[in-house]
Amino acid sequence: MTLQDARNQITPVSVERMDAVQARLDRQTKPPGSLGRLEEFARRFVAITGREEVRAKTVFTFAGDHGVTAEGVSAFPPEVTPQMVFNFLEGGAAINVLARHVGAEVKVVDMGVDYEFPPRRGLLNRKVARGTANLAAGPAMSREQALQALETGIAIAADCAGKGIDLVGTGDMGIGNTTPSAAIAAVFTGLPVERVTHRGTGIDDAGLVRKIAAIARALEVNRPDPADPVDVLAKVGGFEIGGIAGLVLGCAAVGLPVVVDGFISTAAALIASELHPHVRDYVFAAHQSVEIGHAAMLERIGQRPILDLGMRLGEGTGGALAMGLIEAALRGLREIATFEDAGVTRGSGQ
Amino acid sequence: MTLQDARNQITPVSVERMDAVQARLDRQTKPPGSLGRLEEFARRFVAITGREEVRAKTVFTFAGDHGVTAEGVSAFPPEVTPQMVFNFLEGGAAINVLARHVGAEVKVVDMGVDYEFPPRRGLLNRKVARGTANLAAGPAMSREQALQALETGIAIAADCAGKGIDLVGTGDMGIGNTTPSAAIAAVFTGLPVERVTHRGTGIDDAGLVRKIAAIARALEVNRPDPADPVDVLAKVGGFEIGGIAGLVLGCAAVGLPVVVDGFISTAAALIASELHPHVRDYVFAAHQSVEIGHAAMLERIGQRPILDLGMRLGEGTGGALAMGLIEAALRGLREIATFEDAGVTRGSGQ
Repeated sequence: MTLQDARNQITPVSVERMDAVQARLDRQTKPPGSLGRLEEFARRFVAITGREEVRAKTVFTFAGDHGVTAEGVSAFPPEVTPQMVFNFLEGGAAINVLARHVGAEVKVVDMGVDYEFPPRRGLLNRKVARGTANLAAGPAMSREQALQALETGIAIAADCAGKGIDLVGTGDMGIGNTTPSAAIAAVFTGLPVERVTHRGTGIDDAGLVRKIAAIARALEVNRPDPADPVDVLAKVGGFEIGGIAGLVLGCAAVGLPVVVDGFISTAAALIASELHPHVRDYVFAAHQSVEIGHAAMLERIGQRPILDLGMRLGEGTGGALAMGLIEAALRGLREIATFEDAGVTRGSGQ
Repeated sequence: MTLQDARNQITPVSVERMDAVQARLDRQTKPPGSLGRLEEFARRFVAITGREEVRAKTVFTFAGDHGVTAEGVSAFPPEVTPQMVFNFLEGGAAINVLARHVGAEVKVVDMGVDYEFPPRRGLLNRKVARGTANLAAGPAMSREQALQALETGIAIAADCAGKGIDLVGTGDMGIGNTTPSAAIAAVFTGLPVERVTHRGTGIDDAGLVRKIAAIARALEVNRPDPADPVDVLAKVGGFEIGGIAGLVLGCAAVGLPVVVDGFISTAAALIASELHPHVRDYVFAAHQSVEIGHAAMLERIGQRPILDLGMRLGEGTGGALAMGLIEAALRGLREIATFEDAGVTRGSGQ
């Protein structure tokens, strides 16, 4: 599916369907609306999918390397990207553990790691190139590569729809990738770079200064056009960010709810949501990251985070936890007794 | 165990033990501290219990009736309290569904419902009396009854410790019970009644005015002494609130982590925490309720809520969801690979 096909396929989520679910929730033995956002999760999930249960769920952790690490913007060296991919494949990383906790599968998508992996179960080889160019010196990638990354994500969404996966999670791995994410945040929110740039995996004060300077230079050198999200991705993005953006857009195109993880995933979801205004209807924002630019991006997308636990790990970890809460909401819809069935008297005004 | 025995048994949670857990977390393949509050949950749970896994977990939903319903303070009639108890026993209420979702057992404790239940699996008959007196006209209960309610909860905590239950949740059911809870909030926080009194199950504007007036009258008539938490419970509390307060205090006494649900449970936990300053170390505050007096009570207890999902249902529903997150944190501690084992390079400054 091309990017244009996917965009053409996106429709708003039906308000009538959501209202019908809410009407059912309001017959259940609880004060109306008292399950709060769980009720929102249930009505939106059902309106999107037409289902009340998640048959299978998968977190896609997209990996890529970043030329901008040459600027000294990360607390970890670039070789950690492939090392962590191996950790994912062995099941030892935080995302593996939290996904197991909620019964989700993890797939790793190599979008652009600077390493040649042997074929391996759980690893999708979708490499666009072995890492982006240094965005502080010029475009991170070509426009063709940006489109390739987006369409790779779209294809993964289409594949999920055919396989009975009803809930998709996004995740990321890529040393240096809070730098392009902060650049994307600055472009679309219009906020000054220092207001959206934070410590990532834990860089020190001097590193933070270098990171802000690198992003400022990237914006100056590249002049990304906020009205053209593909241009933004190409000039100051990353391959894994493009893959996630495509997955989010593709989920909206094929009618799948997508749980968007933290800072990097949200930068990608913001690209998707700038590509089509109704993408937001399909997005569940997993959590509020510690990264300072995150809230502004979520606000622009128009989704409130589900969790706020001071996390800043990425990989899809917040998304996995949020999936468990979405499933709790669906279980509530399916299993809570009605006033009528339980013989419970209704309250006043109902 | 008497209240005094329980108080004498409470010790602070060991900071050394928490530090030892944190040191292990910091060797895992993730930026240090990047799992945010999950790391706090793990280190506190392990420091309290000496275990890294929850063998079994139970939500105790305490039920009681309230004489103050005569003042027209609730959107639901009092007969809903026993009706909901039957709903719990049939497994059809929200707490049953959410507890199933996280693998917790639900036990209903009849502390003071105005109904005689036949013996039933899952129901603990601990009735102090068939409902409290109207607290707007005099004390809700006698001091002896308040002590009985507290010691009932303490005994349940002691019983859990002997049965391999490693995580306890609190819940409530009692038409009218946000009224005593708001009164307790006003007494201990010193805030004006209208700043801590909200709509409960959904009372209308006129009802809210009646509710505020009833609480103001209760405080005037009874003059509860904030320096004597048993006096506060007796004069403006409820039987289920006393049971929960005892359970929370008892958990601290026997060394069990206790997940405190929303507004009513927090009022009870506040009584427990005023009875002994180290109770707070054992409390996990499940969620931020919509009730306006909730935040001030949590602040006084000194625990931040884990979830903020706009819930206002009680029963232990927020607690069940929070239990799932605490277990996710423990799974992270047990299963995330170390840098050494996974062959991943550490970041700078570590």
